[in-house]
Amino acid sequence: MPASLPGPTVGVVGGGQLGRMLGEAAAPLGIELVVLDPTPDAPAAQVATDQLVADFDDADAIRDLAERSDFLTFEIELADQERLDEVSEATGVPCHPDPATLALIHDKLHQKAALAEAGIPVPPFRRVDDADDLRAALDELGTPAMLKARTGGYDGRGNVPVESVDDAESAMDAVGGPAMVEAFVDYEREISVVAAQGDGEVSTFPVGENIHEEEILREMVVPSHSPEAVLEEAEQVGRDVLDLLDGRGVFAIELFEAADGRILVNEIAPRPHNSGHWSIEGAHTSQFEQHLRAVVGWPLGATDLRAPTVTKNVLADGDGSRPARVDGVEEPLATPGANLHWYGKREARPLRKMGHVTQVATDDESRAELLASARSLVDGLSFE
Amino acid sequence: MPASLPGPTVGVVGGGQLGRMLGEAAAPLGIELVVLDPTPDAPAAQVATDQLVADFDDADAIRDLAERSDFLTFEIELADQERLDEVSEATGVPCHPDPATLALIHDKLHQKAALAEAGIPVPPFRRVDDADDLRAALDELGTPAMLKARTGGYDGRGNVPVESVDDAESAMDAVGGPAMVEAFVDYEREISVVAAQGDGEVSTFPVGENIHEEEILREMVVPSHSPEAVLEEAEQVGRDVLDLLDGRGVFAIELFEAADGRILVNEIAPRPHNSGHWSIEGAHTSQFEQHLRAVVGWPLGATDLRAPTVTKNVLADGDGSRPARVDGVEEPLATPGANLHWYGKREARPLRKMGHVTQVATDDESRAELLASARSLVDGLSFE
Repeated sequence: MPASLPGPTVGVVGGGQLGRMLGEAAAPLGIELVVLDPTPDAPAAQVATDQLVADFDDADAIRDLAERSDFLTFEIELADQERLDEVSEATGVPCHPDPATLALIHDKLHQKAALAEAGIPVPPFRRVDDADDLRAALDELGTPAMLKARTGGYDGRGNVPVESVDDAESAMDAVGGPAMVEAFVDYEREISVVAAQGDGEVSTFPVGENIHEEEILREMVVPSHSPEAVLEEAEQVGRDVLDLLDGRGVFAIELFEAADGRILVNEIAPRPHNSGHWSIEGAHTSQFEQHLRAVVGWPLGATDLRAPTVTKNVLADGDGSRPARVDGVEEPLATPGANLHWYGKREARPLRKMGHVTQVATDDESRAELLASARSLVDGLSFE
Repeated sequence: MPASLPGPTVGVVGGGQLGRMLGEAAAPLGIELVVLDPTPDAPAAQVATDQLVADFDDADAIRDLAERSDFLTFEIELADQERLDEVSEATGVPCHPDPATLALIHDKLHQKAALAEAGIPVPPFRRVDDADDLRAALDELGTPAMLKARTGGYDGRGNVPVESVDDAESAMDAVGGPAMVEAFVDYEREISVVAAQGDGEVSTFPVGENIHEEEILREMVVPSHSPEAVLEEAEQVGRDVLDLLDGRGVFAIELFEAADGRILVNEIAPRPHNSGHWSIEGAHTSQFEQHLRAVVGWPLGATDLRAPTVTKNVLADGDGSRPARVDGVEEPLATPGANLHWYGKREARPLRKMGHVTQVATDDESRAELLASARSLVDGLSFE
């Protein structure tokens, strides 16, 4: 598609940190961003042209957003597929990715079933509506296993490890609704591929290694330490997943690299993702710029690694909600190759993602050295 | 100074492309920007928290700006030194750099005299109030020479080359006011050092080579092709200039590298400068982030080169003023290592700076190859 400047206006459902980093990427490209988010002064509002303060499923507000935009997209899975479809149809403003991908991904059981049906490798899984279902499934899949709420889970919420059949009742109570259970994968590491579907072209970022703790993604190491064959296979799986999804945009495909070298899809996010934040400094094009290019139909950018890179999330600690304030920022500011990213959230809550630090190699530092630096820098931050 | 997040709010006098790129750099750091500019919807307004629409010397507006800010700075020499001094004094909101630097730099004769007095090498110059003065000066300095308006010139406006003593009258008419004349320097190349004065520390960026045409800076090549001794001398001159100036911030020092290897200061800008735009992709810290760090008293960032880099300005062509619209953007978007920067100006006017393209090395491209690429990409753009 012919590209001209000034660029188009993109309406984004969701105005959190992903929207903020989309806004940071939009300005140099001459793309304007308008975001819709129910929280006034949302993180993205501070860099977007404007914010509409409204719920994610507010049909009138989504229509207002469309009328101010040349393209619609979303940065949160809570975006409402039906409203987006209706508004896009009524206004003629295209939405990328296709809202249908939200429906596919929203329900983890549907997501896994669609992947399996397309021949994409996933861990064995079963639908689970009650404790009897779960016990039957565990008989087949073995224990331990992971019980997952079909909808609404994120950052580990809605995921309940099940150690034995005896835990079936309590696990079902904990997950609290329609669920699926997945066989435990004996994995070497968790990795992810961030991939973009553009206008007739596909591009993938170098494969990153993800380090979780308490089910929350904490650290990303790029490139992953995986063997070359695994990296190639992961990239191919990423491309296969894109074939299955409709519409343009960036998708993150989280994978298990099994101990036996197999690649299994864990989850898909139909948007830029925490596991791709490293790309802001580590790649020639960031995942946020890439998403915007894809959504508006511009050529995709080069995704080569600029240098080995580690990103570590800054999570709030302490109890309860309080105004966000972090001390100890001198060290990350003064460390060569360290890059601070603050999301502009007004309130800190335990384990809330408040920002991240990316440590990029400036010399010939090993990935272990980069990780040690990022850990030391983030550990030195303190929430008041 | 202890640094904490969220960062401070910086009030910026001026809201052009420099303010816009300051805003792009501010968001990840958790720094908020408020800009003051007489043009509604100025380039910086699109990324700043807010814009005050007012003249640069509007005392009430500058006071409003200060009251919303923790620090004041400026991105345009038209900022009013006296107003800034008064407001900073009255409100206790510090202004960096010290507004006195504006007075020093505003008048090119004062600037050169101060540099000469400090022992910093400059081309021979004379004060020129009328054609008789000019003829007398040319007798001493020889021809050709450069007649410069003492105040108000930029992008070559106010600079009049004088080929012979016979041109004295017409040159004085062209420059139209108090002036100075400088001996012609037989230079090998024009180079510049972007340097930052932080809170007790000084940092310089790698020396860049500047290619002018019709007195307008068109292209920057980094690092400069200068011999190593010249690069070291240029950096030292940059540090000497910072010693002379008060207050924190980024300064650009434009230099002549004379054919005999001497370094002579051409001009100083007390702010981020066109010759430092390459640093956004080419250095670990951009000049805009560095300016913000310096102004708020945070540690300065690493300025090492990430890769050889060339930047070429995108200047509007054609006649008269018209809505800004550029076609042919596919190529820069699709070229690996090319980065598009659009300033968001609503109107195109001949030779107005509308954006720039930075070509960073992705492999082992030579600087000549990078320059050829940047030229080809910018030549392929067309203003409607």
